[in-house]
Amino acid sequence: MTRAWGTPHPAVAAVRSAVRAALAECDGGDLVLVACSGGADSLALADAARHEAGAAGVRVGAVVVDHGLQDGSRALAERTGRRLGDLGLDPVSVVSCWSMALGGGSGGLEAAARAARYRELDAAADRHGARLVLLGHTRDDQAEQVLLGLARGSGARSLAGMPPARGRYRRPLLGVTREQTRAACTAEGLSWWDDPMNEDPAFARVRARRALAGLEADLGPGLAAALARSADQLREDADHLDALADAAVAALGPGPWPAQALAALPRPLRTRAWRRLLVAAGAPAGQVSSRHTDACDRLLTHWHGQGAVHAPGGLRVTRSDGRVSMAPAHRVD
Amino acid sequence: MTRAWGTPHPAVAAVRSAVRAALAECDGGDLVLVACSGGADSLALADAARHEAGAAGVRVGAVVVDHGLQDGSRALAERTGRRLGDLGLDPVSVVSCWSMALGGGSGGLEAAARAARYRELDAAADRHGARLVLLGHTRDDQAEQVLLGLARGSGARSLAGMPPARGRYRRPLLGVTREQTRAACTAEGLSWWDDPMNEDPAFARVRARRALAGLEADLGPGLAAALARSADQLREDADHLDALADAAVAALGPGPWPAQALAALPRPLRTRAWRRLLVAAGAPAGQVSSRHTDACDRLLTHWHGQGAVHAPGGLRVTRSDGRVSMAPAHRVD
Repeated sequence: MTRAWGTPHPAVAAVRSAVRAALAECDGGDLVLVACSGGADSLALADAARHEAGAAGVRVGAVVVDHGLQDGSRALAERTGRRLGDLGLDPVSVVSCWSMALGGGSGGLEAAARAARYRELDAAADRHGARLVLLGHTRDDQAEQVLLGLARGSGARSLAGMPPARGRYRRPLLGVTREQTRAACTAEGLSWWDDPMNEDPAFARVRARRALAGLEADLGPGLAAALARSADQLREDADHLDALADAAVAALGPGPWPAQALAALPRPLRTRAWRRLLVAAGAPAGQVSSRHTDACDRLLTHWHGQGAVHAPGGLRVTRSDGRVSMAPAHRVD
Repeated sequence: MTRAWGTPHPAVAAVRSAVRAALAECDGGDLVLVACSGGADSLALADAARHEAGAAGVRVGAVVVDHGLQDGSRALAERTGRRLGDLGLDPVSVVSCWSMALGGGSGGLEAAARAARYRELDAAADRHGARLVLLGHTRDDQAEQVLLGLARGSGARSLAGMPPARGRYRRPLLGVTREQTRAACTAEGLSWWDDPMNEDPAFARVRARRALAGLEADLGPGLAAALARSADQLREDADHLDALADAAVAALGPGPWPAQALAALPRPLRTRAWRRLLVAAGAPAGQVSSRHTDACDRLLTHWHGQGAVHAPGGLRVTRSDGRVSMAPAHRVD
């Protein structure tokens, strides 16, 4: 399973090095949990975390989430859990969550399964007092995420992909390829499970994977790496512009706002400020699109006495006497 | 050719409305030139510009550039020129440029042809004293450009696509689809020329077109619109961040620079500042990549007394005594 002599396989070294960097923020005795599906990505991650635990002075456990979406999934999860225990991870929790099989919700099965997974991971982290939870997303997952962002939304935030760190979650493998995690498992003698759902084109992520392969064939290899690099840079840009917009909105104070003060903001901050003002006034964040912020912006850039702009959440945005206001269309007084 | 009564076809109306907005900045008597290949996009553009000329109080002419890349291309250009004259455009210049067939250059045939085309357009605009030159790029061209940017580079600027305005050039049709320009030509009884090179996968743009069709099939329609919308927003973001970085670099003054002052910049401005400092110190702009700016940045974020960073143009970037310097590796004193 581990090599007694010599240097590790390059893929094993790459995964370990990425995990080592992620563990550097931990203090001695901290517990780190690896979210493991039994697939090559998270198995390579778990194996590397176990290997690095000693040098980092941390304890490494795992959580296996069984979504119950397929026959035999519970047995598979149990087997993965035993495998992780054999590798030396401790504690190992195998948890079942069936909720999403019932509900669905607006985002469909994938979104519901993701929400359920994070609920279970959070609960396990709380239960064990874990400092960090490591997720096995690779550079290929990141590139697919950017493609999905391209198709679904627009702007820097939709193209910024998955963050390497959010709350207690870390994604150490965003710079490692899927091919490398498979090579690492093979080199370490770990057999992984290939989820048949990864081949089902009913899922957006599977279609993104296929689209990415087609794009690389048409536009040349290196596309996945370029997408992941773009995501990193766009995330930094978006974080900075968001911080500037937060400051601008704080400086504007409560409405109504002088049109002149709004118009004085540079356009990328103004667009973001409109979004913030709309959400603060009650518009559901997921429903505010560039169509709405553009319409609001025309109250400043193309002012000709036009009527109210209608925004999600039943909001009316109006300009009068040089001031912009937001209010529900039908007040309940 | 034109309809005596009734409202124009919706596609014709869309093209005209886009052109009208672009002509609004002109003064009475200005000359506007349309760059026309004889394809549906630029033919619809020329026809709409001719229609809007009266209301805008401008004169509209055209330039047809013959690249001489195909047999009979000169005759085709002459025919397109006569057609434009018949439509009422005046003056109409048909110019030949063969230069790129000889040279090529680092970007290959497409880049050389593009450079030659802009040289000829600039010369024609100077000769006739044109206020604006209109280009027929559509929303589909823009989406393809973003895809090419995804494959080639990274960050907001590579994904920002073609600007709607640069210098005297305007692209009024970036919100109009290729399907609309074809429908507009058909409705106006204009027969256009389909460039066989638009089917040749030797060209990156043709591969991008094919890739986009594949992506829409995998990820759903609306992808081209989302890409074009992303390009607009990323261009605004990039313009603002570039302006902030210019100001930061101006405030830094001439080197060597205190490491502390550089480190105090937020990361998206710092990355852009590194690029500007490297180019100002002699690095060829086209060769500076995120690999170089990241290596420079580690002199600030991961300083452990490391040696010089080597950058394009033979530059060495060093840190000593808390100050960062850039100099050619081998000075010729």
